[in-house]
Amino acid sequence: MGGVSPRLEDLPLRDDLRGMTPYGAPQAPLPVALNVNENTHPVPQDVADDILDAVALALREVNRYPDREFTELREGFAAYLGHGLTRDQIWAANGSNEVLQHVLQAFGGPGRTAFGFAPTYSMYPLLTRATGAEWIAGGRGVDYTIRADDAAAQVADAAPDVVFLCSPNNPTGTPLGLDVIEAVYDAAPGVVVVDEAYFEFAPRDERSALTMLPGRERLVVSRTMSKAFAFAGARVGYLAADPALIDALRLVRLPYHLSALTQAAASAALRHAPTMLRMVDEIVGQRDRISATVEALGYTPHESWTNFVLFGGVDNPSSTWQALYDRGVLIRDVGIPHHLRVTAGTEDETTAFLDALASIGSDA
Amino acid sequence: MGGVSPRLEDLPLRDDLRGMTPYGAPQAPLPVALNVNENTHPVPQDVADDILDAVALALREVNRYPDREFTELREGFAAYLGHGLTRDQIWAANGSNEVLQHVLQAFGGPGRTAFGFAPTYSMYPLLTRATGAEWIAGGRGVDYTIRADDAAAQVADAAPDVVFLCSPNNPTGTPLGLDVIEAVYDAAPGVVVVDEAYFEFAPRDERSALTMLPGRERLVVSRTMSKAFAFAGARVGYLAADPALIDALRLVRLPYHLSALTQAAASAALRHAPTMLRMVDEIVGQRDRISATVEALGYTPHESWTNFVLFGGVDNPSSTWQALYDRGVLIRDVGIPHHLRVTAGTEDETTAFLDALASIGSDA
Repeated sequence: MGGVSPRLEDLPLRDDLRGMTPYGAPQAPLPVALNVNENTHPVPQDVADDILDAVALALREVNRYPDREFTELREGFAAYLGHGLTRDQIWAANGSNEVLQHVLQAFGGPGRTAFGFAPTYSMYPLLTRATGAEWIAGGRGVDYTIRADDAAAQVADAAPDVVFLCSPNNPTGTPLGLDVIEAVYDAAPGVVVVDEAYFEFAPRDERSALTMLPGRERLVVSRTMSKAFAFAGARVGYLAADPALIDALRLVRLPYHLSALTQAAASAALRHAPTMLRMVDEIVGQRDRISATVEALGYTPHESWTNFVLFGGVDNPSSTWQALYDRGVLIRDVGIPHHLRVTAGTEDETTAFLDALASIGSDA
Repeated sequence: MGGVSPRLEDLPLRDDLRGMTPYGAPQAPLPVALNVNENTHPVPQDVADDILDAVALALREVNRYPDREFTELREGFAAYLGHGLTRDQIWAANGSNEVLQHVLQAFGGPGRTAFGFAPTYSMYPLLTRATGAEWIAGGRGVDYTIRADDAAAQVADAAPDVVFLCSPNNPTGTPLGLDVIEAVYDAAPGVVVVDEAYFEFAPRDERSALTMLPGRERLVVSRTMSKAFAFAGARVGYLAADPALIDALRLVRLPYHLSALTQAAASAALRHAPTMLRMVDEIVGQRDRISATVEALGYTPHESWTNFVLFGGVDNPSSTWQALYDRGVLIRDVGIPHHLRVTAGTEDETTAFLDALASIGSDA
């Protein structure tokens, strides 16, 4: 595992990397792992069989470089997203982190800035700085909500080259109104990324930022297959934007960045979208059960439109985290004082977490 | 395909990307494609079956993030490379381009420089500039060889942060002596990358730069599964270096950059290394046949230790390229005056190329 050896300092490392330690959420083999917002439901066997058939086909030509334009996969994403999108409006990469990295490589970089409303997804500042740009953290209101006029004022003041709006927000679960996106877009001089990694867990009748794409050539809506599609291990993120913006991403991606196996597996999974998404309702049910139960236990859950719950009122997060760990349940201390974050698991996993939490008591 | 729309210029693109066009070797559906140095032999069916079994296993947990440390795969590479290497000396990523990008992100970047002896792999300058560093092109002697004393003098003069030594060299096929690597390492203040992407096609008794790793903590030896392993579609590159240098790469990689499917497929393929590499002798035979035949046709092939041949004496490379294209054979114009490059294919593909070339005549 990623301990940095003393001799690293002897190497001619870039100055801005000195003293850093590698990213990592712990990967611990605990019975109940609810720490990184995975979909804890395995891919159904009939879908896995279909994916395997697609991979078998791809293996026949794996000696050749993959389709650099991943045309079939982009068509699959366009069809899945709907809203009249076509493949020339779609981009994909190895996880949404790489998708966002491509956006920053094209529109961020040295001498530029990226902005987000903290607390938000912890990779935004890391990705920003890795491309040489400066990270600017804006603020949120009570209960982590953002108001349109306040958001627009903050963005106008910062005038960032790239804005990240996590909708709903990680690690807080907070919904984001389209009015905020519209106000921020109008106030922003640069690219506005609406990160809808968890959007499939929002109420069904809510409108996606995808509906706002027409006429907004600086707007990007990113998604991932890691959460709703139970595909974290396959590393597939994607986004929709104006075709001109997609062309900009072609300038910075590595040639053949998406493997033939990834393209085949993701395309096959997309063909089973209704089956893959059937788990979402079950997960939303468990999420709401977590919120209700931790509240009954005396904690303060925040409203969540995601597959996880951030709850406050934790006297000592690190000791509660450890007590849960000792009971075989892994959740996440995201660094917000008096808060912890837990992913909604299967019914059994959720029960295990809630029982363990109840057994600890508030004085853990 | 990647035509840049006029409206790209209206977006707030980074200044250094303005006017650029996306990378691309043409991906044309021609009967005989010998343009990008692929291994044109498909993966044998028994190996493909084993890979598929490994992927099936990985799919059972694809809802979870992959092993961020890709431990099993690193062990596989260490065992394959030999020379007493252990997994803490191994790194891997989605193609050797991403491996080299990680090296540049850690040791290059703004205000730094990277160096290579031109003509060499066309991605080196692109990767260098994409991380904000400056590319410095050194020169080669007659017939693209490099002499140790001359190379050391050039490197000492440039004092680059990263040196790329392509061994054997792409696009020329030229062998590189270990004496050159030693002299360059001693003269270089920074990291020295020996890119052995094509090393498996060199004579069997030649020593790899892997033998030089002990005691040289700034030395990196990179490889790929794209060529000898017929795995270009799976996107797997890797390198060996001091454990401290590997730790530096952990600081810049995206979390979970290698998918569970990639890890499973590559590990399974490595277990069949002897079978996968059996095609290498056949390809080397076709390469030598190309060299002998194009020489008999009046061209001047350069010595090659790779799976391709660069040949000079072409009056008009673009018209010869087009004449071959019109006959269903795709090769590569790498931009060297009066030269073309062709990949050694199967016996039939090689025959098709040689027959087509003979039919054109030198006045194409």
